[in-house]
Amino acid sequence: MDRQPNQLRIVVIGAGFGGLQTAQSLSKSGAEVLLIDRHNYHTFVPLLYQVAAAQVPPETVAYPVRTLLRRTRNLRFLQAEVTRVNFAQRQVETREAVIAYDYLVLATGSQPQHLGIPGVSEHGFMLKTLAQAVALRNHLLHCFEQAERETDPQIRQRLLTVVIVGGGPTGVELAGTLVELKQALRRDYPGLDLGTLQIVLVQSGDRLLPNLPARLGRYTTRKLRRLGVNVHLETRVSRVTSTTVTFAQGPTLGTETVIWAAGLEAALPAVATPPPTGAKQKLKVRATLQLLHEPQVYAIGDVAQGEEPLTGVAPEALQQGVAVARNLRRQLRGQAPKSFHYFNKGRLAIIGGWAGVGKIGPLLLTGWLPWLLWLGVHLVYLPGWRNRLVLLLSWLQSYGLGDRPLRLILSSPPLTPPPPSQRLPAIAADRASLDPPAE
Amino acid sequence: MDRQPNQLRIVVIGAGFGGLQTAQSLSKSGAEVLLIDRHNYHTFVPLLYQVAAAQVPPETVAYPVRTLLRRTRNLRFLQAEVTRVNFAQRQVETREAVIAYDYLVLATGSQPQHLGIPGVSEHGFMLKTLAQAVALRNHLLHCFEQAERETDPQIRQRLLTVVIVGGGPTGVELAGTLVELKQALRRDYPGLDLGTLQIVLVQSGDRLLPNLPARLGRYTTRKLRRLGVNVHLETRVSRVTSTTVTFAQGPTLGTETVIWAAGLEAALPAVATPPPTGAKQKLKVRATLQLLHEPQVYAIGDVAQGEEPLTGVAPEALQQGVAVARNLRRQLRGQAPKSFHYFNKGRLAIIGGWAGVGKIGPLLLTGWLPWLLWLGVHLVYLPGWRNRLVLLLSWLQSYGLGDRPLRLILSSPPLTPPPPSQRLPAIAADRASLDPPAE
Repeated sequence: MDRQPNQLRIVVIGAGFGGLQTAQSLSKSGAEVLLIDRHNYHTFVPLLYQVAAAQVPPETVAYPVRTLLRRTRNLRFLQAEVTRVNFAQRQVETREAVIAYDYLVLATGSQPQHLGIPGVSEHGFMLKTLAQAVALRNHLLHCFEQAERETDPQIRQRLLTVVIVGGGPTGVELAGTLVELKQALRRDYPGLDLGTLQIVLVQSGDRLLPNLPARLGRYTTRKLRRLGVNVHLETRVSRVTSTTVTFAQGPTLGTETVIWAAGLEAALPAVATPPPTGAKQKLKVRATLQLLHEPQVYAIGDVAQGEEPLTGVAPEALQQGVAVARNLRRQLRGQAPKSFHYFNKGRLAIIGGWAGVGKIGPLLLTGWLPWLLWLGVHLVYLPGWRNRLVLLLSWLQSYGLGDRPLRLILSSPPLTPPPPSQRLPAIAADRASLDPPAE
Repeated sequence: MDRQPNQLRIVVIGAGFGGLQTAQSLSKSGAEVLLIDRHNYHTFVPLLYQVAAAQVPPETVAYPVRTLLRRTRNLRFLQAEVTRVNFAQRQVETREAVIAYDYLVLATGSQPQHLGIPGVSEHGFMLKTLAQAVALRNHLLHCFEQAERETDPQIRQRLLTVVIVGGGPTGVELAGTLVELKQALRRDYPGLDLGTLQIVLVQSGDRLLPNLPARLGRYTTRKLRRLGVNVHLETRVSRVTSTTVTFAQGPTLGTETVIWAAGLEAALPAVATPPPTGAKQKLKVRATLQLLHEPQVYAIGDVAQGEEPLTGVAPEALQQGVAVARNLRRQLRGQAPKSFHYFNKGRLAIIGGWAGVGKIGPLLLTGWLPWLLWLGVHLVYLPGWRNRLVLLLSWLQSYGLGDRPLRLILSSPPLTPPPPSQRLPAIAADRASLDPPAE
């Protein structure tokens, strides 16, 4: 890539939906574009929960950034962790180098909000990165393996109890897909009493999917309960340990798996002179998506808070990416940037049991139609023809045949090892004990 | 699974080709069969090198043991690490339990032989497990990412030099597929001078593929050299560090990637009273595949050494698995076990550039026919219709389109970090330095 002597440089941090769209839309801007991400792949976050539930293989939801940008000119990709941003000197610092910019786009996304609850960061499973999704899948498969040979009914119940905290789309999707997982487990773990598999969904507010109309939230609650999920509304978690979760209302539940899907905050890089932030650490931006006091710096996606209220879904970041690229081209030509307005094409959420909910314009949808629409939209938006085909195959296997590839516990860290005295009888020298105890 | 009071128990350790086949063939033996493996999946080892070369996704070559054994009766699977085997007390010990057996089948496979060469175990990449294949792939992708931004030509050359030690099938296959990888790299790393990518294949003997006729070895050497691989015969490695490999003949080569494919030894579990072993730590077995002094214990695959000379390929272990199951059924009925004889259907090896070699009966094959046969055989033997489809897609993409999904560096450990003074200029504050240096 040969850069002209006076060519300006735009640095984009983050190769999520927003950052990637910005970089692609800047392809003919005339400026040099440098896209930085800590990973060499773009993560298709909406499908991470299916990776965690052993429904689709991890590679399907990751796409190499370099391959996505093959046809984009004037663009360079750098795999690096940004350690600090310096607005005054117009520099981005990574572990290995300092990079000067003329314009900067911050698209660093979000991270789970722990809300100061003890034990969440140590024992809670998150679902924001591919590594986290794979870790959760491995942990769940470990739990099933261990439960199958466990003779202590209390420990076995703990291994077969999954608590999901947060009633937004991620929590609802995960609860639904874990219930569906039962069918595949039945085939592979004939020794396991799956009647005891317990999926608990905890929501602090009074309904699920708070970003959608109340009727859809009520439908979702009914549907999940019918599928066998224990939905607890207006319930808060006060403490998490490696084997329990405690609710603010008092009771403690034994579980080896607490999944934290209770809200996100901005994942800001360190900034030399921190700019004004709003709720959830988000950077305050003007209607043009520029930072309040930094006209050379834009922020989009989950890291930004504009005047318009947004809910943190991919289409918002994608549209902002297009808008920022347009504004940067205007700035390069000496014109003033324009205001961004989100065009809401609708919202869809998948529940499980071939049902979903959706809102398209004034239309509220429930049942199989929004479920099918959800699948179709995600199939189309997933990058790569090969990934789409593998995704389609995975869905045929899971939704069509009720089966899943429950494989590949790549790492094998021991689960919270209980005292040996408790654990040894599981398969004792006495041969008869290999048989599952009579229930 | 309900076990009859006087039902005998057969324990099989290892869910590779041999162990799995034994367990499957014992399905109607009347005995209780317990299969133990440290992983919950069977690894299709012949395709591991394609995982390492970013050609097929890791999940494709791993298949859940429980799913493979769904239709097998009287069988239980235990995911556990065997810590010790006690022949005198007829017990298998794992971290969590002690398991009594009446008959035992050892099918624990092989592990790389380090031959006492300094640095191999710390810095050499192995290719015997899925985790190792993924680690090698991630390392290679890291090297390309780092080489693309590296300005020091010496470090860049080191990052782009791959040394493969061992001229058996694994070394040859890997050298071939890494040369083919160039085409995909060219598209994704336009800033990289791929003329400098160097694949070195080192063989201690005087020809490649020593288990095949000399003519096929010579063809393989010529073919690989024509593809651009530096083949060094009669060359031994005397030392490996994180950035170099030293040859016994003297010269030292700078490289960040030394792949150790120089031979295997038996991967024996600890045994209370160690039985007689032969070359490469292999357990000596009778013609019936029973251990010399333990008629209740069988050993098959890479862990066993019988009277027949075998070369360690999957069909040998598969046929031994069938034979051991037949012998165990005979022993259960009070009959004497029979001798095993390997029926050699032929040997195939894939080279690269649409070429392979093969020996079927007296027929020696070279070129595209054995290449195609190799692909066909592995496609058919890979377990799972879905895996086969994904494998076929992957091959269409890599062999047909010359493309590969270079994604998913899941872990991001820093490579041997050089002194900061060397590394910082890579992308300096001076904007011009982002351009690749003129070559």
